[in-house]
Amino acid sequence: MYQYREVAPGDLDLICRHRREMFTDSGRPAQVLAAMAQPFRDWLAPRLASGVYFGWIAQAQGRPIGGLGMQVIDWAPHPNHPAQDRRGYILNVFVEPEHRGRGVATALMAMAADEGRRRGLDYLALHATEKGRPLYAKLGWSQGKEMGLNLK
Amino acid sequence: MYQYREVAPGDLDLICRHRREMFTDSGRPAQVLAAMAQPFRDWLAPRLASGVYFGWIAQAQGRPIGGLGMQVIDWAPHPNHPAQDRRGYILNVFVEPEHRGRGVATALMAMAADEGRRRGLDYLALHATEKGRPLYAKLGWSQGKEMGLNLK
Repeated sequence: MYQYREVAPGDLDLICRHRREMFTDSGRPAQVLAAMAQPFRDWLAPRLASGVYFGWIAQAQGRPIGGLGMQVIDWAPHPNHPAQDRRGYILNVFVEPEHRGRGVATALMAMAADEGRRRGLDYLALHATEKGRPLYAKLGWSQGKEMGLNLK
Repeated sequence: MYQYREVAPGDLDLICRHRREMFTDSGRPAQVLAAMAQPFRDWLAPRLASGVYFGWIAQAQGRPIGGLGMQVIDWAPHPNHPAQDRRGYILNVFVEPEHRGRGVATALMAMAADEGRRRGLDYLALHATEKGRPLYAKLGWSQGKEMGLNLK
């Protein structure tokens, strides 16, 4: 029922919308997301064009209904990946509400893990919304130890 | 009683030891930390030399007894820092056991937050050990939403 394809530079607006809707769903204030929109677009455009940002779009009858993005980020060798100075990072996991609960996010996450293995990565990370957490836990992901501090 | 100075390229061995002892304290297996040692040293050396890795060493009577490292890492503009495509990252927070509970980590964390503000950063992140978490919470840090998956 669903088809999956790699993201392409022409998906810039789509991915920006997915990110905004993902964070809207998780309760982030509209004002903050409005402030993030152009900086995120400016960040994504060159990375999507170069392939530094990669991932997949899920489609239903030729129309995009979800997606997932991925990067390989520099990271100090760490007990989770002692021999590697990088980790995979997954972001912008989004499925349109009417297509949820049908395995789309699971399929996208499987593609990301496969691609991580194909690239020889030992470890993947992501930041989960409360809604997303149970799915990731079911797929074997465990809670990280990250903390954050706003300086503004 | 304690003095603080900036890290310097000559601190390479010291920081490697701090990282290893920090993770030993948090219960990571010695075998994993042995595997991490050389890759971490290879990762740190150029970054410490260039200043991409910066931070502070705490000293007592001229002898180093703790330290903290920091980086500014590329990150997609995010609700926690909507207008910025980077965040501060703190790592290798370590104080020797006999000097704990005397404000050294608090002083190092204050230097990191001040430096983050000086560099105009809106957001800082770190990964906390269970022992470190209460201190960071007292300093205003909140739990992040990160999850991780080992692919090996």
